[in-house]
Amino acid sequence: MTIPGHPFHDRPDAPLLVGFSGGLDSTVLLNALARDPAVRRRGLRAIHIHHGMQADADRWTVHCNSVCDSLGIPLDTIRVTVRVDGRGTEAAARDARHAAFAGLMERGDVLVLGHHRDDQAETFLLRALRGSGVDGLASIRRWREFAPGRLWRPLLDTSRETLLAYATAHGLRWIEDPSNTDSSFDRNFLRQQVLPLLRSRWPGAESAFARSAALCGEAQQLLDDGDASALAACTGRNPRVLSRAALRTLPAARRARVLRRWIAGLGLPALPAHGVARIESDLLPARADALARFQWSGAVIHAWRDGLHAGAMQDTVPEGWKATWDGREPLSLPNGSRLALEGAPVLPWTCHVTTRRGGERITLPGRTHSHSLKHLLQDLDVPPWQRPNLPLLMRTDDSVLAVADLVYAKEFADWLDLHGATLRWLPRSD
Amino acid sequence: MTIPGHPFHDRPDAPLLVGFSGGLDSTVLLNALARDPAVRRRGLRAIHIHHGMQADADRWTVHCNSVCDSLGIPLDTIRVTVRVDGRGTEAAARDARHAAFAGLMERGDVLVLGHHRDDQAETFLLRALRGSGVDGLASIRRWREFAPGRLWRPLLDTSRETLLAYATAHGLRWIEDPSNTDSSFDRNFLRQQVLPLLRSRWPGAESAFARSAALCGEAQQLLDDGDASALAACTGRNPRVLSRAALRTLPAARRARVLRRWIAGLGLPALPAHGVARIESDLLPARADALARFQWSGAVIHAWRDGLHAGAMQDTVPEGWKATWDGREPLSLPNGSRLALEGAPVLPWTCHVTTRRGGERITLPGRTHSHSLKHLLQDLDVPPWQRPNLPLLMRTDDSVLAVADLVYAKEFADWLDLHGATLRWLPRSD
Repeated sequence: MTIPGHPFHDRPDAPLLVGFSGGLDSTVLLNALARDPAVRRRGLRAIHIHHGMQADADRWTVHCNSVCDSLGIPLDTIRVTVRVDGRGTEAAARDARHAAFAGLMERGDVLVLGHHRDDQAETFLLRALRGSGVDGLASIRRWREFAPGRLWRPLLDTSRETLLAYATAHGLRWIEDPSNTDSSFDRNFLRQQVLPLLRSRWPGAESAFARSAALCGEAQQLLDDGDASALAACTGRNPRVLSRAALRTLPAARRARVLRRWIAGLGLPALPAHGVARIESDLLPARADALARFQWSGAVIHAWRDGLHAGAMQDTVPEGWKATWDGREPLSLPNGSRLALEGAPVLPWTCHVTTRRGGERITLPGRTHSHSLKHLLQDLDVPPWQRPNLPLLMRTDDSVLAVADLVYAKEFADWLDLHGATLRWLPRSD
Repeated sequence: MTIPGHPFHDRPDAPLLVGFSGGLDSTVLLNALARDPAVRRRGLRAIHIHHGMQADADRWTVHCNSVCDSLGIPLDTIRVTVRVDGRGTEAAARDARHAAFAGLMERGDVLVLGHHRDDQAETFLLRALRGSGVDGLASIRRWREFAPGRLWRPLLDTSRETLLAYATAHGLRWIEDPSNTDSSFDRNFLRQQVLPLLRSRWPGAESAFARSAALCGEAQQLLDDGDASALAACTGRNPRVLSRAALRTLPAARRARVLRRWIAGLGLPALPAHGVARIESDLLPARADALARFQWSGAVIHAWRDGLHAGAMQDTVPEGWKATWDGREPLSLPNGSRLALEGAPVLPWTCHVTTRRGGERITLPGRTHSHSLKHLLQDLDVPPWQRPNLPLLMRTDDSVLAVADLVYAKEFADWLDLHGATLRWLPRSD
């Protein structure tokens, strides 16, 4: 390879899709890859995003087509509409680009982007200006999972100066990279004012920041490995529940990471910093029955017994709610959860469904006398905040046939067995 | 406490020694501590360093005396001479100060220094400009071990602006802090040019950098814990030897940390980055008998069998060297190691001491026929590079009595047992 710094030392053995804006960075990237016979053999395509935000976008598309034609590289041009929301233009444009990239990728494909060392240095400094920890300071990753494949940034150790020298030496033509105008005012302020001032005293400033970022990336990988082990040690059969006793054995810094990893793994909104603080101060030390909780962005963590229980906030079923149900169609509860009969067309009784009022009893299979629902739910470790929302399936004489899909009365269990049928209680599907 | 940000939330239950320059930072620190009755009860002293480098140093000493007199705090003034060496004035002055502080501390004392949030932000940025990893980016620690006690920097989360407001509100008098003029040009460049520019766009820049530093400090603690476990898993009975097989099971980033920790723990000079790279590329994959090695600053790591062996470089004993020894005084070998007889005044034979020439044999206790030294040293796992330096204790008829303090011939072992004596071979003591 001819770019100094051997940017392709970790070239994958997979078809490559290059994000090609027509700017300096991606022009050098595309040309350098196009010269590699092994890359050509495995498959090399390019994708150009037509943002429709710049007046010159059409002209750029023509230029990109002409470059790819001359290199013999297939080019897809995708028009995207950037929805500007509260996060600003840059983030919205990036999301639109990523969606377009993902749309062209097959399993195992590698998307290749032209981010270089100076981008990395800027990102590091921006993260530090936000007070980020190791995960944020790690900045841009050379490799990461992306869509059904991976994302590779082979120029991440190469300075813009080197790219410019390569482009000049090879007589490449490029256009002002749209991503430079896309990029945020913060980034431009760093690029135009702060970094030149730093370079005037520390000529290697960008290189140093990029090295710090890479070292933070290595450290983050080690921390992640430790987080995964610690999380596993705090988790039992139910991934939504962590043991408070096990959490308390961890150093606070590890505990914070484990909590964030746990919540992310459940697909819940990111746990905010003040949430970690609240868990430390209120939920971990809370008495087993104090029902301390922290809620944020539609999610909630309850402390109960030894556990921290995480989940989406559930609406409650209004007191006194009651419905008649014959089992033919799933029954929707007022909080969006549903009760469904599977494996049989209809219930053999006319039933109604309601929630607990207190004092209900049920006769379990294999038993001759009835049990109080209250004690049964305690014994089954059903958390108190879930109990008011459990649908009770009842005969018209108010005898309880089933508590959601957790507990069945003898006569209902016998009927389900006989017909190979099942009762299912499904949470709200958002 | 009256300084916003509760700088004394982790106030220790120990006598405090405050480093008092007379500047703003340490003046606020001393005054705030002096107002705390609990601190006064446990003991509060101050130390002023007279650097002898500034023309005004005598005037500062007078000022510090007057402040401490009015607060009723005992003050020691220590004159230090700063030896300017290759590392620059700042480092030399800091070392001189630290030595003076350490000299006044008793076991358990806590040295308190006035470093504040803006110092922390500058340090973070300087470390990033050097391309430091997480350990360096962690910057200044709020707490660390120091001399026979600890070092505490309670103002590390407090801005200079807050200190100034406190000093003004309490009518404190202070002098321009000598450490500002001591401090390096790099630091002054950041303070006077870079940070004001950053603040003009990010008013919280210093606070953000200090937060990143603190988060890196937490991460470093977790990484250190992981390093300690990984090092233990790679170490057997001999702390100077790591198992290459065990090292190979670690992620490369962990292995690099473990290697540096291992070398530091042995008291050897810090392992440089290119040393880690050499171990990765040459020593770890080397054949068991290839004797690959890496040496730096008087230390050396050899790869042999499954082990990496670390130690100080040993001079070799010249071939043909020979000495007569009766055991009365320790015998010095030409490479600085020594052979000593303990528990008996004198050897019962006139002996000479030499090194191996090849073909020597020895008759071990409990055996009737002799063994070749070559096979014996292999069986004892004595590394090949140590074998030429082993002193052989011999009778004048050239029969081998002892190989250093590793192997004894039957007649010598019997004599040592009878007299309760011991032979010791001591490495060079630098």
